[in-house]
Amino acid sequence: MTKITKNIVALAGGVGGSKLAYGLAQIVAPEHLTIIVNTGDDFEHLGLYIAPDLDTVMYTLAGVNNPATGWGVKDESWNMMAAMARYAGPTWFQLGDRDLATHLLRTKWLSDNYTYNWVTKELCRRLGVRCAVLPMTEEPVRTMVQTEEGELAFQEYFVKRKCEPVVTALRYAGAEAAQPSREVVNALRQSDAIILCPSNPLLSIDPILALPTMRRVMAASRSPKIAVSPLVGGQALKGPAAKLMKELNMDVSATGVAQHLHDVLTDFVIDHADAAEEQAIKDLGLRTLVTGTIMTNNETKVQLAQEILDFIGVA
Amino acid sequence: MTKITKNIVALAGGVGGSKLAYGLAQIVAPEHLTIIVNTGDDFEHLGLYIAPDLDTVMYTLAGVNNPATGWGVKDESWNMMAAMARYAGPTWFQLGDRDLATHLLRTKWLSDNYTYNWVTKELCRRLGVRCAVLPMTEEPVRTMVQTEEGELAFQEYFVKRKCEPVVTALRYAGAEAAQPSREVVNALRQSDAIILCPSNPLLSIDPILALPTMRRVMAASRSPKIAVSPLVGGQALKGPAAKLMKELNMDVSATGVAQHLHDVLTDFVIDHADAAEEQAIKDLGLRTLVTGTIMTNNETKVQLAQEILDFIGVA
Repeated sequence: MTKITKNIVALAGGVGGSKLAYGLAQIVAPEHLTIIVNTGDDFEHLGLYIAPDLDTVMYTLAGVNNPATGWGVKDESWNMMAAMARYAGPTWFQLGDRDLATHLLRTKWLSDNYTYNWVTKELCRRLGVRCAVLPMTEEPVRTMVQTEEGELAFQEYFVKRKCEPVVTALRYAGAEAAQPSREVVNALRQSDAIILCPSNPLLSIDPILALPTMRRVMAASRSPKIAVSPLVGGQALKGPAAKLMKELNMDVSATGVAQHLHDVLTDFVIDHADAAEEQAIKDLGLRTLVTGTIMTNNETKVQLAQEILDFIGVA
Repeated sequence: MTKITKNIVALAGGVGGSKLAYGLAQIVAPEHLTIIVNTGDDFEHLGLYIAPDLDTVMYTLAGVNNPATGWGVKDESWNMMAAMARYAGPTWFQLGDRDLATHLLRTKWLSDNYTYNWVTKELCRRLGVRCAVLPMTEEPVRTMVQTEEGELAFQEYFVKRKCEPVVTALRYAGAEAAQPSREVVNALRQSDAIILCPSNPLLSIDPILALPTMRRVMAASRSPKIAVSPLVGGQALKGPAAKLMKELNMDVSATGVAQHLHDVLTDFVIDHADAAEEQAIKDLGLRTLVTGTIMTNNETKVQLAQEILDFIGVA
């Protein structure tokens, strides 16, 4: 099969985003596909620089991801963690033995002053990932979660507290001042289509859109800009999107997601289960694609990617 | 059994030293036993601060050491290394998955500006090691190996090059300026006996003695100072001691070790196999104990420790 040679840019967070990214990577020629990944979840832990969303996207594209957990690598072992527990050291954030190689190399290279883009590219290259995977910015942006119990760093909220505290607001610390890299801006400028993957709109997509230049360059683009709703039937397939939207008084539905993102979009994809919402989404000025959006295996990932590219006319 | 309550200080490197340290720990009350450990082998690798001799001593005293390798922990797995190999990352220095917990915690705590003594004490405490284990100094000292192929950092010589290059000289970079910590000096000043464990005299003991204050405090001590020969029958039980001594034109024998160390000693222990050398060692002005020095199991470790303390009259 000849691969697509239009320039496709996808914005992605973790699990949901990486699934569609995988689908796109099977049908788009690697030199024409760029995945821009949320780094608002990045944090330092035990001296290691950890980039959860970049890792999930990279592992998924490399085919070494753990499909059971949605994060980390397959065939993982946990002996470092067992030893850490014996030390009564911090065990709230799970670090698999194989996964540690990624964190050690990334941390070492960053401390050797290689750029974040170079480090990401090099890790991907060594795992055999051929399309471009780019951190949304090389500058620090940290998602901060304001809750009824005070402000929490993202991983504290997400992993340590298991998303239990009620959220009152989100803040992307550093985003206002951060610039997307030249590679990110070029990919957007040269894009024939921009796809917002079905990632959490508040925790994965919003941090990317919080970069002023990102939003400006997207607005200047004539390409179709299409998002896939991460909510199906009013529920998130994984993660706290629905709970968060409710706590922030948003409409917990595909329509709610479309309302939240429509000012950067031209097109929107919803699941058959939400077909009744199609008109409400059209009323926001968006073209709509109604199809099966639940990606349960590699075939459905490719199928959704293909349908999206067909719909916006870049296939 | 009542434990010995005289103050015993032992100087140790890796494998051989840790065996005698284990024996001593079984018969000396923990608050009366101090193990001062060589840090000349310390190095940074993949952003981790690694202290091979401290780890070997600590793991051995905690009973979690790997007796097959002489380093690392038992029941180890190597999945981080497998993942690192897949990345074509550095694999010349083996880092076991369980062992990584030690390196991560130590590195994190040191970067948080806890002292090297505190970090060592805390790791030991959490593994249930009750005697004092002290780095010889909290300041950086690095054993450098001058070879026919140029100067090599210790781990490059020892691990990467497997001790193959012919050694022309050794240098303990930083030792002249480094001070032993107050804890080390106090332990030596209050000691009733100082024992040089059967560690490599050039790579494990000499770096400790290269600290001018260490040598001065030992010289000022009226306590017996006894070394155990790491050579038996002209051979090292493990490691490159014999090869190194030969390359440096030393007498490759217990006598050669005694000649090298006699100016800091009062007593010397040799194996039955070297009984013929007893007079030569006495001629250096040392009292001699001839006994079985090969520690093949926990019983023989305790037995040698007991015989030494009996011999110098502190049991």
